Amino acid sequence: MDSLSPTPRTTIGRGRNRAVEDRAILHAFLEDALLAHLGVVARDHPVVLPTAFGVDLEGPDASGSLYLHGSVAAGWLAKALERDVCVTITELDGLVAGRSAFHHSMNYRSAVVIGRARLVDDAGEREQALAAVVDHMIPGRWATLRPSTRKELAATAVLAVPLAEASMKQRSGGPVDEPEDIAAGVWGGHIPLLRNAGLPVGDEDSQGPVPSDVAARAADLAC
Amino acid sequence: MDSLSPTPRTTIGRGRNRAVEDRAILHAFLEDALLAHLGVVARDHPVVLPTAFGVDLEGPDASGSLYLHGSVAAGWLAKALERDVCVTITELDGLVAGRSAFHHSMNYRSAVVIGRARLVDDAGEREQALAAVVDHMIPGRWATLRPSTRKELAATAVLAVPLAEASMKQRSGGPVDEPEDIAAGVWGGHIPLLRNAGLPVGDEDSQGPVPSDVAARAADLAC
Repeated sequence: MDSLSPTPRTTIGRGRNRAVEDRAILHAFLEDALLAHLGVVARDHPVVLPTAFGVDLEGPDASGSLYLHGSVAAGWLAKALERDVCVTITELDGLVAGRSAFHHSMNYRSAVVIGRARLVDDAGEREQALAAVVDHMIPGRWATLRPSTRKELAATAVLAVPLAEASMKQRSGGPVDEPEDIAAGVWGGHIPLLRNAGLPVGDEDSQGPVPSDVAARAADLAC
Repeated sequence: MDSLSPTPRTTIGRGRNRAVEDRAILHAFLEDALLAHLGVVARDHPVVLPTAFGVDLEGPDASGSLYLHGSVAAGWLAKALERDVCVTITELDGLVAGRSAFHHSMNYRSAVVIGRARLVDDAGEREQALAAVVDHMIPGRWATLRPSTRKELAATAVLAVPLAEASMKQRSGGPVDEPEDIAAGVWGGHIPLLRNAGLPVGDEDSQGPVPSDVAARAADLAC
């Protein structure tokens, strides 16, 4: 088993029972999740921003690369390159109704990646990275699109964050309650949360059928 | 209109067209959203962790308080009190399939709150805060639960983050594409994403019917 948490700062402290130690589970989770939160350090405070992401396990980072992109004019970009960043990717899977306030909880899967972001400047890796981000959102989409223009590429910054320092936690199921509360016959359980997608919506300029990659993604996310 | 973004660090730079400037919209969004990401600064890097949260607009902070809680033994707690924190709350509403890679995007609502966290030590405010967190998850639940024990309260740290410095962005609808790509007849649109909930699941020790607050919350989140 290729294991996680190789450094003190990604070794899980509290809640070790919820730690995931198999890199294959991290990779499957990253493939499934849709949204990342990027944390950077500004002068004296953190800034956390939501962002799309892509993953390439065959990239130049030995452990695989998490790819983020943004405008070259984005305020967070310089900050992301000055110091290490933290990228946290979470999917919320349920609300846990314990028999006491204390044992209320949430079911989730969450990966925390800490590392030095690398500005990707190699043209080939940039293209791979942008394809990873687009195909992460809608698998197969990149191959259906026209090539990016030089102007578009010049306006886009691509960052790689190595997956070397990563940890993952997950929680599922019902509450872990006090024996007295269980003995008292109080109800305890959870509400499962699921992602769902509606049918694709073409904009007012769209003609013809929904592309098959878009239709397949919507069907895949529907529940 | 009680407006947002009163300080430079929460004034939105890029994407001003997506900025929300009405505090009432922020408040409605915070009520709807389920998950926060807390960013703190460790020695030389940020750490971003998923967490539940509650909101109290009548709390001691003039702008309202965002409440977070955790174990008094949690590693992030001391870090959250040493420097300002950033709490970002995001709901992902859709995947935007542009006519080019460059114009792919995501539909979302996201609030960023930066401020100094305050350790809540007043017994009354602690109770209000914990009720806000539990009722945020399942409205009405706090009133159905036994009182917290002294041991439970002693094990729980409660943080208040003032809503004074907050910004919010949102994006909805289809892509904003290049005229040439539209003229070429390429399809562009979006996949709406929705939250969904399954029926509540009682654990193996549960007897009797699902409590009405839990059933109502599951029904409310179902689509």
